[in-house]
Amino acid sequence: MSADAPFLAKPSLLDHIRPQALSLPESGIVEVMNYGRRHEGLIPLWAGEGDLPTPAFISEAATRSLAAGETFYTWQRGIPELRAALARYMHRLYGVAEDPERYYVTGSGMQAIQVALALTLSAGDEILIPSPSWPNAAAAAEVVGARPVFVPFSFDVARGFWLDLDRLESAVTPRTRVIFINSPANPTGFVASVDTLRGVLDIARRHGLWIVADEIYGRFFYEAEEAGPALAPSFHDVMEEDDRILFVQTFSKNWAMTGWRLGWIEAHPSLGPVLENLIQYSTSGVAAFMQRAGVAALERGESFVTHQIERARRGRDIVAKGLAASNRVRFASPPGAFYMFFGVEGEADMRALALKLVDEAGIGLAPGTAFGPGGESYIRMCFARGEAQMSEATDRLVRWLQR
Amino acid sequence: MSADAPFLAKPSLLDHIRPQALSLPESGIVEVMNYGRRHEGLIPLWAGEGDLPTPAFISEAATRSLAAGETFYTWQRGIPELRAALARYMHRLYGVAEDPERYYVTGSGMQAIQVALALTLSAGDEILIPSPSWPNAAAAAEVVGARPVFVPFSFDVARGFWLDLDRLESAVTPRTRVIFINSPANPTGFVASVDTLRGVLDIARRHGLWIVADEIYGRFFYEAEEAGPALAPSFHDVMEEDDRILFVQTFSKNWAMTGWRLGWIEAHPSLGPVLENLIQYSTSGVAAFMQRAGVAALERGESFVTHQIERARRGRDIVAKGLAASNRVRFASPPGAFYMFFGVEGEADMRALALKLVDEAGIGLAPGTAFGPGGESYIRMCFARGEAQMSEATDRLVRWLQR
Repeated sequence: MSADAPFLAKPSLLDHIRPQALSLPESGIVEVMNYGRRHEGLIPLWAGEGDLPTPAFISEAATRSLAAGETFYTWQRGIPELRAALARYMHRLYGVAEDPERYYVTGSGMQAIQVALALTLSAGDEILIPSPSWPNAAAAAEVVGARPVFVPFSFDVARGFWLDLDRLESAVTPRTRVIFINSPANPTGFVASVDTLRGVLDIARRHGLWIVADEIYGRFFYEAEEAGPALAPSFHDVMEEDDRILFVQTFSKNWAMTGWRLGWIEAHPSLGPVLENLIQYSTSGVAAFMQRAGVAALERGESFVTHQIERARRGRDIVAKGLAASNRVRFASPPGAFYMFFGVEGEADMRALALKLVDEAGIGLAPGTAFGPGGESYIRMCFARGEAQMSEATDRLVRWLQR
Repeated sequence: MSADAPFLAKPSLLDHIRPQALSLPESGIVEVMNYGRRHEGLIPLWAGEGDLPTPAFISEAATRSLAAGETFYTWQRGIPELRAALARYMHRLYGVAEDPERYYVTGSGMQAIQVALALTLSAGDEILIPSPSWPNAAAAAEVVGARPVFVPFSFDVARGFWLDLDRLESAVTPRTRVIFINSPANPTGFVASVDTLRGVLDIARRHGLWIVADEIYGRFFYEAEEAGPALAPSFHDVMEEDDRILFVQTFSKNWAMTGWRLGWIEAHPSLGPVLENLIQYSTSGVAAFMQRAGVAALERGESFVTHQIERARRGRDIVAKGLAASNRVRFASPPGAFYMFFGVEGEADMRALALKLVDEAGIGLAPGTAFGPGGESYIRMCFARGEAQMSEATDRLVRWLQR
């Protein structure tokens, strides 16, 4: 800009950053949270977290490690004790061969996704994402210069959200490299059946694609047909050893550790050195004392997890009953995860609705606009809270709907 | 691969990952660490960390926060208390205008670099890095598909390592986007003078480049001419408000918090929303209880920092005296950081030398090969330890050199 153009806008530092960074979406959830954060008496159901703090036996494992001086650099792939505990846990739950070399500790499930995408996507590549979906996977793909291609979920009130495999396969192009499957899903509550998972895997095999499997809500599943711990269908049930599947996982939901930023990647051991490098060059690993908390969670957390899931199931039933009675809401009670994702008759602008509900109903929901194509006519309500709060929040919502 | 080619090697999952991920270098430091980790009685001087655990008043701030249940999602840009504490700290040290909006908390200095590069580099771009250098910045650039262009430091025994500005500028091409300047530098101990910093800034301005300023060793400076806390020259001394400079920082070195993974980015406030997005889509922030520890470090850590720097200075002098007496070593006592980076007469293969020193001298050093072009004929010794250990390590080294 020349000095004799005084009326032009001053050049901004923003003019000089890379275009992909500039065009990243601001999270539509964060916008509402920032709007309502200090609103007195508000019941916050916008985020994907419950109301229980991390159980003391987990926090105390970190505290003991800190007090013992475990504050130095440690294994970037994760401490051996946590990788072994993960191997035992995944073996017990899913029958995965008990091999610590399959597990790489990350600084959040988000970082697990980031690393998985850095492993598989180059600039210009495409990733298929059923939509609406949690927005961060698509955004992380954009950071590496790849293009998210959204495949719409199908919906009907009887069946809820479901994935049309023909629609998924018809979205494959020569640039497609990854299918991202989140099941049970945020925000839709979609849970892939074993047949659907097998179908996705067939598509991936046919076209030589990776699957990034986000099964972080795998235990929040309300329609198990067998006895034993409820578990949504998993790619573990249908895959072969050599399939190109990366599992991204987190401690956040099962053990009420959302604020910790602790997760893991499960992958074929041959990928280990590359995964360790990608961790090294992004955060260089996770604090040892955090990882001690992870060990405690895996080894002593079962009754807490069961308690949380039961609580979420009651939350779901309370909200579903209220919404059904309101006669203004389009929804299906979700078989998994912990969100009610619904449309409201007569409300078209869900961002505006979310802001109104903060001010007029004292509840914080997340507008469907935050979840990409197909989400525009929905709003998301987290039901991972205690009965009293879920009842009160449902009452407030239904009263507002019927006002 | 067709079924009738049974003698060909089985296809590997590694054949299908993106080439940039596959070609990332394994850290040459980690190789020696993994080799020597369980070697009894070894004095480990390979990593960039001292021997002191995090001071209790810092760890206890995290413990208190954990016990109080601060385990939920928090501000992705950092909690307001930490950003305010950073603003006060940087104002006090460098006279930076006291504005919390300049500071974004990251999950390590490494993540600060990753985010800074994601902000400025696209695939195919080039980043200038004086070399030898800590390898992770170059590797992080490669992860985004950019190309590190190494500009050799100059060296002579009288002057130590120095940066030839003509050489730097002649490496600029139309694809150059960033100059990465680490001063005081790892592993060379190079400290840029105010004139050098001004020269780098002039080059960046002339060519429209970003500077990523890694001044994490800024307080480990042994040649201050003025009274008051020693502080190496900083880009803060020469920059204007609108210069394109991103500072990457860490709590690791000053406060003995290497294992925590806690750092920050300092940037012009106009970049805030973009930085927050990049944090969101990589780790989604840092645990609140970790950040409370950061506040304690900044507000109550001065005497500890002073103690650590004084200790490192004594370590430097012990090693320098020993090496000078050995008559086999080519080195200059470094004005900053906490590494002795030296060559050994008659030793050409520094990776082999590092492995031999583990077995035969009982000390763990980092081979210069880990630090990129120009590092091949050097080996790095961290001297951020107590007098007794530094004396013993120096004795072992010198005995081995003279055996």
